[in-house]
Amino acid sequence: MSSDLLNALIDGLRVLPSVGPRSARRMALHLLQSNRKGGLNLAEVLSQSMTQIKNCQSCRNFTEQALCSICNDSSRDETQLCVVENPADVDSLELTSGYTGRYFVLMGRLSPLDGLGPYELGMDKLFELIRSQSVKELIIATGTSVEGDATAQYISDQLVNDDIAITRLASGIPSGGDLEALSGNTLKTAFANRQPF
Amino acid sequence: MSSDLLNALIDGLRVLPSVGPRSARRMALHLLQSNRKGGLNLAEVLSQSMTQIKNCQSCRNFTEQALCSICNDSSRDETQLCVVENPADVDSLELTSGYTGRYFVLMGRLSPLDGLGPYELGMDKLFELIRSQSVKELIIATGTSVEGDATAQYISDQLVNDDIAITRLASGIPSGGDLEALSGNTLKTAFANRQPF
Repeated sequence: MSSDLLNALIDGLRVLPSVGPRSARRMALHLLQSNRKGGLNLAEVLSQSMTQIKNCQSCRNFTEQALCSICNDSSRDETQLCVVENPADVDSLELTSGYTGRYFVLMGRLSPLDGLGPYELGMDKLFELIRSQSVKELIIATGTSVEGDATAQYISDQLVNDDIAITRLASGIPSGGDLEALSGNTLKTAFANRQPF
Repeated sequence: MSSDLLNALIDGLRVLPSVGPRSARRMALHLLQSNRKGGLNLAEVLSQSMTQIKNCQSCRNFTEQALCSICNDSSRDETQLCVVENPADVDSLELTSGYTGRYFVLMGRLSPLDGLGPYELGMDKLFELIRSQSVKELIIATGTSVEGDATAQYISDQLVNDDIAITRLASGIPSGGDLEALSGNTLKTAFANRQPF
């Protein structure tokens, strides 16, 4: 482009996931032509977020406080702890599940090739939390990918001598699903886990 | 989300074109989890761009200087002026056309319903530029939409008494195109504008 600063902006926008050179240029020109105020506001919250958002000292979810709003909420049930991979999973469960316990956010799943081991996922904090508090049920809500399964297995193996119930979200046919559209693995799992009707 | 600041960031990202709530959340979490440095850099260039990038005093293209790099380049041919709708069009022409003259960027096209008339497109500056400098050929490179055609027609009508050549980019079959894939209008124009072989 004709302006070095504009080129820097286009390059800068490419840190956003799935934004290539063409989308970045479109975004930059859109902001310059029709929404400079929105662009300035974005710059401000982005700068604040990158510097002020840390991990909750208890559950590792993102928060700008020492403890996130869920960990700070004394009405939540301390006897249930739900382990999820990502902050977005907490949101999804909060919106739909009616769950009233606490969470622990791994911020990933075991993936040695990406350098993500038990330490990087804060598992020491997870086990400390379980043992220091009155957790009676640990709900493992990791995904059903190979890594998600391995993460669930690892957590459950480490707690084999602890006196807590460990559960995992049900696997099976998604609601509204036709059998013919499912992957072989989904169908196999659903068949193996069939329930009394 | 668990954090007000994170919610503000997700809202803030939605000023970007074609970014909905889900993409905005994915972008925010991606930056927080794996690229805070990139996020901070983006905040910085965004803030600088929104405040420092203005329109070039001569051609209206975006620049942080008084004159853009093309208008500042004394080796460019002052006798040719190419009118385009958007800054992106200047880039495309620079990359491909071998054109060595100057540009004028309308930053839009005539569209009365959107409040874009001759004044908003800086046409007074365009005509002043043509009359005060030694422009011999005006190349109209607006798009071939109805508005692009109307914009081209308007400019050419205003210059009917000026002693300059006015040309427009050729319309016809795009390179590598099959006839059956073209719109009726494209084919009609290409047929009407047929050239000696």
